[in-house]
Amino acid sequence: MTSSASRHQRHQHRPLRAVALGGGHGLHATLTALREITPDVTAVVTVADDGGSSGRLRREIGLLPPGDLRKALTALAGPEDGNLLWHKVFGHRFGGTGALAGHAVGNLVLAGLFEVIGDPVRALDEAARLLGVSGRVLPMCTEPLDIEADVVGLDEDASAVRRIRGQVAVATTPGRVRRIRLHTADGSDDPPRACPEAVRAVAEADVVLLGPGSWFTSVLPHLLVPELHDAIVSTAAARVVVLNLVPQPGETAGFSPERHLDVLCEHAPRLRMDAVIADADSVPTPDRLRRAATALGARTLLDRVAAAGARHRHDPEALAASLSRALAAV
Amino acid sequence: MTSSASRHQRHQHRPLRAVALGGGHGLHATLTALREITPDVTAVVTVADDGGSSGRLRREIGLLPPGDLRKALTALAGPEDGNLLWHKVFGHRFGGTGALAGHAVGNLVLAGLFEVIGDPVRALDEAARLLGVSGRVLPMCTEPLDIEADVVGLDEDASAVRRIRGQVAVATTPGRVRRIRLHTADGSDDPPRACPEAVRAVAEADVVLLGPGSWFTSVLPHLLVPELHDAIVSTAAARVVVLNLVPQPGETAGFSPERHLDVLCEHAPRLRMDAVIADADSVPTPDRLRRAATALGARTLLDRVAAAGARHRHDPEALAASLSRALAAV
Repeated sequence: MTSSASRHQRHQHRPLRAVALGGGHGLHATLTALREITPDVTAVVTVADDGGSSGRLRREIGLLPPGDLRKALTALAGPEDGNLLWHKVFGHRFGGTGALAGHAVGNLVLAGLFEVIGDPVRALDEAARLLGVSGRVLPMCTEPLDIEADVVGLDEDASAVRRIRGQVAVATTPGRVRRIRLHTADGSDDPPRACPEAVRAVAEADVVLLGPGSWFTSVLPHLLVPELHDAIVSTAAARVVVLNLVPQPGETAGFSPERHLDVLCEHAPRLRMDAVIADADSVPTPDRLRRAATALGARTLLDRVAAAGARHRHDPEALAASLSRALAAV
Repeated sequence: MTSSASRHQRHQHRPLRAVALGGGHGLHATLTALREITPDVTAVVTVADDGGSSGRLRREIGLLPPGDLRKALTALAGPEDGNLLWHKVFGHRFGGTGALAGHAVGNLVLAGLFEVIGDPVRALDEAARLLGVSGRVLPMCTEPLDIEADVVGLDEDASAVRRIRGQVAVATTPGRVRRIRLHTADGSDDPPRACPEAVRAVAEADVVLLGPGSWFTSVLPHLLVPELHDAIVSTAAARVVVLNLVPQPGETAGFSPERHLDVLCEHAPRLRMDAVIADADSVPTPDRLRRAATALGARTLLDRVAAAGARHRHDPEALAASLSRALAAV
């Protein structure tokens, strides 16, 4: 942690450098909010998806699951400043009942770029150029990963622990997730290697965001890649956690806001945070959340960041305002 | 037909306007050659393919078969002036044994553009922009078509005529094709409507090219779309036929060069031509070819236009030189 003054100095002659870690819808929310604050946004995206169009492509072609990467690209290519046509084409899903049904065109384009270019980072940069993205989208690792979870509550013996494997299975388990691990797809016991550009982005950032999102399958995985964990723990950037608005059925059913922070600590004991952003109306016991945040070294901001009329989604402008407040204070 | 002088006058202050009609490999050859002569090249492409990746997409999604359109786009986006990366990505085919195996990425991108934009002409213009194409690729018709052929020699009674339907079936028939017809995919008896931009391109062209290519399935279909036939017959452009180097096993097995011209006359009796280009080494009876060409109103140019070492393919530079000679003389 550096002081507010030195942070300000570091980026006073250039835009704020923001890195958002996550995957899926939660990451979409942070990226949309960050675009309001700075043009220099890097998304670092999980690569353990095994469901839907991404899962099918991953099983069939053995590449990084492209869906979350695609969603991050289109989040950073806003309709107003990005290329609207390719934004639509990337998100378009084939219909019908045939072999292509459900595939997003952008997933197929990314798969083609991955195969032709070989290097997923360069492939994503090319897709970003096509979409008019001003920031950057990077995979957490350049090889696909598998998530494995210790889950209780699946058996008559409520304390019996089962290993559940695969992002979809973990995200939808009716049991309670205790802990997750990552496995490389090649079956080796070696820890996953981080994408070097992602490590560098975290190291050079002014602000690093964790959450919101599926806590075990989109937010935590980054902390389980050793080089990325170390970069997050040691960066001089302000570290901000954005909590979910509602517990997610399945992996975090019944979790209180403070329990989300406890889970972070359990998986990354050395992690310190600067700020925790939560929706004021989604925190039943603010004192408990503040205590958990303080244990992480963080201030707590209770703001109104839920979208009007869709309380499970963040309002991008409100979240941007809350992020600005958080950054001004650290 | 106009005189050489007036033609020259018509395009002396702008590049020559060339339109090449065809599909598949033959069209690729003419487009590559025309790019050597002028930047203003329009490809008008058949839309009756029902094989391979195109056929699968057509059956599954009900769109124009994209393969020949894609090949025309990449032919007009040369590696030196077009976008080399997207050129490669468009031509890349997924491997493996899954649902995507064999699909060219460009076919999937075109299918996505067709669905999102709705209008295939605008969709092709967007793909052309991505690929850095300076000319234009248009479909012959904006709805997919079916080819039906009268074929003899399939039965013990050698004169018995069978109707064979579908581009792949016609192109590979062991019988002899006598005549083809086009059907719209909706099953109606109405003749196919031409793509208006294709009709306009032919009307405004300085030179219109027919062939080389699969004679019944890639070259003739354009003459069977009434509005396109009329535009070809009545345009002031120079009309040039480029003959195939070898008879195609299946649809034109055993056809002499002059027989190819006879087939044109049989399907489009009002068609007059200005020049016929044939490879000097591929014409066994030059006098017969000259007579057939003269009957169409055309000069015959016997040039060496086959690629060295691959006599079934045209050499683009040699073909460009022959085309220039043909245009200078008409």
